[in-house]
Amino acid sequence: MTKFMNAPATALADSFEGFSLAHEDLVDVYSEPRFVCRRSPRREKVAVVSGGGAGHDPLHAGFVGLGMLDAAVPGEIFTSPSPSQVLAAIEAVAGDMGVLLIVKNYAGDVMNFEMAMDMYGGIAEMVVIEDDVAVGEVGEGVGRRGVAGTMIVEKIVGAAAEQGADLRVCAALAREVAHATRSMGVALGGCTIPGADRPNLELGSGEMEVGVGIHGEPGLRRAPAVSACEIVGELAPLIVNELGSPDEVLLLVNGFGGTAPLELYILYKEMHRYLTSAGVAIGRSMVGNYVTSLEMPGASLTVTHLSKRFRSLWDAPVNTPGLRWGI
Amino acid sequence: MTKFMNAPATALADSFEGFSLAHEDLVDVYSEPRFVCRRSPRREKVAVVSGGGAGHDPLHAGFVGLGMLDAAVPGEIFTSPSPSQVLAAIEAVAGDMGVLLIVKNYAGDVMNFEMAMDMYGGIAEMVVIEDDVAVGEVGEGVGRRGVAGTMIVEKIVGAAAEQGADLRVCAALAREVAHATRSMGVALGGCTIPGADRPNLELGSGEMEVGVGIHGEPGLRRAPAVSACEIVGELAPLIVNELGSPDEVLLLVNGFGGTAPLELYILYKEMHRYLTSAGVAIGRSMVGNYVTSLEMPGASLTVTHLSKRFRSLWDAPVNTPGLRWGI
Repeated sequence: MTKFMNAPATALADSFEGFSLAHEDLVDVYSEPRFVCRRSPRREKVAVVSGGGAGHDPLHAGFVGLGMLDAAVPGEIFTSPSPSQVLAAIEAVAGDMGVLLIVKNYAGDVMNFEMAMDMYGGIAEMVVIEDDVAVGEVGEGVGRRGVAGTMIVEKIVGAAAEQGADLRVCAALAREVAHATRSMGVALGGCTIPGADRPNLELGSGEMEVGVGIHGEPGLRRAPAVSACEIVGELAPLIVNELGSPDEVLLLVNGFGGTAPLELYILYKEMHRYLTSAGVAIGRSMVGNYVTSLEMPGASLTVTHLSKRFRSLWDAPVNTPGLRWGI
Repeated sequence: MTKFMNAPATALADSFEGFSLAHEDLVDVYSEPRFVCRRSPRREKVAVVSGGGAGHDPLHAGFVGLGMLDAAVPGEIFTSPSPSQVLAAIEAVAGDMGVLLIVKNYAGDVMNFEMAMDMYGGIAEMVVIEDDVAVGEVGEGVGRRGVAGTMIVEKIVGAAAEQGADLRVCAALAREVAHATRSMGVALGGCTIPGADRPNLELGSGEMEVGVGIHGEPGLRRAPAVSACEIVGELAPLIVNELGSPDEVLLLVNGFGGTAPLELYILYKEMHRYLTSAGVAIGRSMVGNYVTSLEMPGASLTVTHLSKRFRSLWDAPVNTPGLRWGI
């Protein structure tokens, strides 16, 4: 796998240097330890902090800015950040209103964010996201993986924090949005970490991994690839049925980085048909690469049961490298 | 190559149906013949119309909306739209101020847009974009290919038209921006058109195509892939030297669809270093997939010499599926 880089060992540092230079109007990027924070953080609001392994751009560093995250803490590619990295980010943005940590449910992330919270000692809460319906059960055993639904939580809670909601309200809201959000992915191939000699997921020609994770983890099953209509026909009920009978939803058709928009819109069409025939209105939607796995060909579907409050916070202004409106 | 689709024959129609449903607040999509126009076009302004083969999303259909294009005419994938398609789009959006056609320099596109302009018979001008420095010379023989610089022209001229500039001014501005814009691409692999049994460009492992076109056309040369620093070291002077000694530029680091943002930011870093050491300030920049070739791994670099007027029009509000700010 040929890549645009100078050397595997410097790829991530070079990339963050480019990110920093490209978005210096919005973010400050620190390198020892590495974290990204909002330019001129507002310390009179709840600080919203997220993070996890790098390689999922724009999640999370690309969502730092007005109305979303105050700081993001990227680890190495697909690897948790260290507690001291998380602590440095918290200290850079925390004010008197406290800190909300939004963490995808992976053992390393949860452990390291918890340790950082303990080391910090100030007012902080942590909300763990488990939106992937492919494997596991929320709150049982290791629980479920946190995937693309995380960005929905970050956007909605980021807006509430921007509007002055206190920590108790922000944390409760994050849990409510997480509870109303479900996702599932499918891969048509893997991706290759810089320096690795093979993809993290090896699929035969014409195969798909149903329920794949955002690091190429196995999902429900491996099978011969089928039509977009059949894929949606399998994934959509698994996602939507857990939400009860939502009247209105936010639909995110998310690319993993190596799939053309042309294909994502075909999935959107099929999801629209499925939801409409189930009597579910699509109140808001997004189609694009938002929670990626480097250059993995594949996509995920995320559905959030929209309340009037969620919709209004979703629509609130946001100004980040990866998401921008109302500004 | 496995893809998300129902059948090769319906892929494009299905995709446009999804696009239409996903962006019905911004655009109307017609299917016989196929074109995309701005919801409620403003007929008291110059209508800006572009188009060309599909497969380059968000170019052009994703740039229809306030402050950019009034209509886009997509052909089949990598294939010119027909004159009657272009004519239908012109008639849907043209008012008394006339129509400006922005066309990438490919023989089929230029011929079919010209024919449509003749068939229309109303007030219209056409500007042909030739920003790719890899092959040919502007205005000589078949000239140069139009590539990612086209979106810069569409944004800046779209803003001027929105502000009420007349057709003469819009056409002159389009030529000025085109004249101040240069691009070049490099591919690390090809892409596969739905239904085709092989990629349009076949590169060996560890090879790159320097100066590739956005349909996988050959460029300057095929060579073993080198570092990001060396790639930029080869492309940047070819791009920038033709612009004289610009003091300030807009820099677009554009992905072709199959390259991770992590890598695009490494290219950005190298371009920043190159430009800075040449005494060129980066006044505005973009990093992402804007002018793609389906899922091709690769990227292009576009530089526009920024004047104060260009910068102000670039910053003007835009509200399209693919580009949105100030709204």
